[in-house]
Amino acid sequence: MKEQVMSEMKAKLRPFKDYPAKHFRWSADASGRVATITLNRPDKKNPLTFESYEELRDLFTNLRSASDVRSIVLTGADGNFCSGGDVFEIIEPLTRMAMPDLLAFTRMTGEVVRAMRKCPQIIVAAIDGICAGAGAMLALASDLRLATPQAKTAFLFTRVGLAGADMGACGLLPRVIGQGRAADLLYTGRAMSADEGLAWGFHNRLVPAAELSVAAHELARSLADGPWFAHGVTKTMFNQEWAMGVDEMIESEAQAQAICMVTGDFRRAFDAFAAKQKPAFEGN
Amino acid sequence: MKEQVMSEMKAKLRPFKDYPAKHFRWSADASGRVATITLNRPDKKNPLTFESYEELRDLFTNLRSASDVRSIVLTGADGNFCSGGDVFEIIEPLTRMAMPDLLAFTRMTGEVVRAMRKCPQIIVAAIDGICAGAGAMLALASDLRLATPQAKTAFLFTRVGLAGADMGACGLLPRVIGQGRAADLLYTGRAMSADEGLAWGFHNRLVPAAELSVAAHELARSLADGPWFAHGVTKTMFNQEWAMGVDEMIESEAQAQAICMVTGDFRRAFDAFAAKQKPAFEGN
Amino acid sequence: MKEQVMSEMKAKLRPFKDYPAKHFRWSADASGRVATITLNRPDKKNPLTFESYEELRDLFTNLRSASDVRSIVLTGADGNFCSGGDVFEIIEPLTRMAMPDLLAFTRMTGEVVRAMRKCPQIIVAAIDGICAGAGAMLALASDLRLATPQAKTAFLFTRVGLAGADMGACGLLPRVIGQGRAADLLYTGRAMSADEGLAWGFHNRLVPAAELSVAAHELARSLADGPWFAHGVTKTMFNQEWAMGVDEMIESEAQAQAICMVTGDFRRAFDAFAAKQKPAFEGN
Repeated sequence: MKEQVMSEMKAKLRPFKDYPAKHFRWSADASGRVATITLNRPDKKNPLTFESYEELRDLFTNLRSASDVRSIVLTGADGNFCSGGDVFEIIEPLTRMAMPDLLAFTRMTGEVVRAMRKCPQIIVAAIDGICAGAGAMLALASDLRLATPQAKTAFLFTRVGLAGADMGACGLLPRVIGQGRAADLLYTGRAMSADEGLAWGFHNRLVPAAELSVAAHELARSLADGPWFAHGVTKTMFNQEWAMGVDEMIESEAQAQAICMVTGDFRRAFDAFAAKQKPAFEGN
Repeated sequence: MKEQVMSEMKAKLRPFKDYPAKHFRWSADASGRVATITLNRPDKKNPLTFESYEELRDLFTNLRSASDVRSIVLTGADGNFCSGGDVFEIIEPLTRMAMPDLLAFTRMTGEVVRAMRKCPQIIVAAIDGICAGAGAMLALASDLRLATPQAKTAFLFTRVGLAGADMGACGLLPRVIGQGRAADLLYTGRAMSADEGLAWGFHNRLVPAAELSVAAHELARSLADGPWFAHGVTKTMFNQEWAMGVDEMIESEAQAQAICMVTGDFRRAFDAFAAKQKPAFEGN
Repeated sequence: MKEQVMSEMKAKLRPFKDYPAKHFRWSADASGRVATITLNRPDKKNPLTFESYEELRDLFTNLRSASDVRSIVLTGADGNFCSGGDVFEIIEPLTRMAMPDLLAFTRMTGEVVRAMRKCPQIIVAAIDGICAGAGAMLALASDLRLATPQAKTAFLFTRVGLAGADMGACGLLPRVIGQGRAADLLYTGRAMSADEGLAWGFHNRLVPAAELSVAAHELARSLADGPWFAHGVTKTMFNQEWAMGVDEMIESEAQAQAICMVTGDFRRAFDAFAAKQKPAFEGN
């Protein structure tokens, strides 16, 4: 690759620490390495709107060019995660739209999931209270999920006469909790309790509500302080190998890991190990 | 599509309420919305025969044209689900067949599973006692599974010298209970207890034997009273996305959900929600 | 196929009972049906070296031509399974290698997994103590896993600055324990306890350390005494159907099972059943 192209690519990298969020809260720690997205319309349990969908899609897409943010905590304000698409602000207009607009909408919401899966940052969902509809999909599209014992997760598309097939649910959910349980949740729309979510592998850990934010940020920080370039490769390979045969995934990982083995981070990690020190990862 | 073709297609729709089953019991509620298939050769724990395989294949295939049936309970008579292919009526003849006939047989049994996966009706298996061999496959091919604490599910093909690869088991079972547990069951042929089945996500719920039929019918009825056109789309998408990449499944669901959003059922569900009433779904 | 080709193929079949292992211990029972691989550098918790990787790759590849071995126990000496690639014998040299050599290395380690998945013998991992890095991958690449309550399984590639994508982990692990739990283990590198491994479907069973070897050998023996040709077909189909659609896997199994139905083993199993005797499988 020519110098110019490369320097143009590097020029696109920019800090997101002070990203001016409009439709949700955005904050980052001093280093900008760990950022937090807080859905915050707590009076309605943090529903999504056309505007917040769009901003989430754009933000997660643009985070591929972040020079600072390495991991993200996704959460909701005041004891709830997200109540999904607002019934009057989203569902009602949808009942009156023409097909091209409907398809543009379903593609936009799907793009939120796709952008979450494709950004290199590891996304830790911190889930308390209501986690419903498109909110449940945001949790599912995250990489890791911490929840409180009060978390209630419901893929309730069926409750408004729609299919469980929304934003990738029929493909993503079975791989997380198994095909039979996914069928139960998507056909009935019933809430999965926090205990079920833990037993089924949806939640990685349950923590008391008072500790949720700290626990999620500690996890996100440890990932940001770890080999974040390699984490991004891991995330890419989870996506890549989703529907790959056994032979192909082994070759794909041989290539992916060889890429990581020529990074300085790999050498630094070994040097630190040999010196009994903690490695500092630089992403190169 | 021209009017004539469309009206010919509609003409093919017909009620299945009074379907005259020959090799198992068939019953439907007054509306014909919920039908029940009962394997009923209880003296031998409800084995399958060449004839019942064929009739199941034809029935599930034809149910795509049902104008009434929206969900199905699949169960067995007198405390057992199904003991699989009858050893003397099926296994013995198979040991003497030529390859073309064998392949015709394995394709026919596979067609039962395929037809169960492809019909739009949601199938609720109600499992008590023995659920073995091809019977275990009928349970696995169902969409949801309720069982009693006495249910014993065994994929025992290996016990008659055959592969665990029967009717799709090596592909379907790992997605429900995980690859490691599926290997255990298919290599050893051992029975999965009801508790294991619940913990592993094979069974959706355990209920006492005395309540099994009622619980299964309540679940089937709630699905039949729900947005059954959308449920059929959900079922289709579970199949479609089985081996699809992440990008493709998101686009597929954008299209599938957009289809559901132009149905009257979607509007009716919203109207009912706004009026705090219960929606009535019409499948259009 | 012409007689000559067939007899040349048969000539390649040879016994592996007395295989002269160099970089691990190899033993087989009197019949040669059940063989045991014991990683045995117990002073360092049985790490892998370039040489043992290569020998494992070659052995599992060549076992396709074994005339005797039907199942394998894979274990480690003195209370640990395997500590993975030796930090000073493997990691250090890798930090100084050029890309072609790195890719040759990652392909070689991947080939170990591929050869384990492709050999017809069922592999039972018997896991005590440390099961880490490439050692965890050997466990994952096995068909069945027995462990002691002391087993600790860690995919710790991330700890040396590498991706979790190693030897197929990002593809294989989610299918065994679910996508969310796999993300946890591969991003954090934390150890999965034996209890977690059992609850998540990684381990098939936990047994006390004193009984591990006997339990693993009993399981391996029962598989070797069973329909081992059919078991090999089951194993092949698990691989084949990894990323196959529902329709295709049903047809694939119709063919695979028809193959098994023309074996003498199938007839022998039926005859033994009818005579209430124990069948003797001959693999033909």
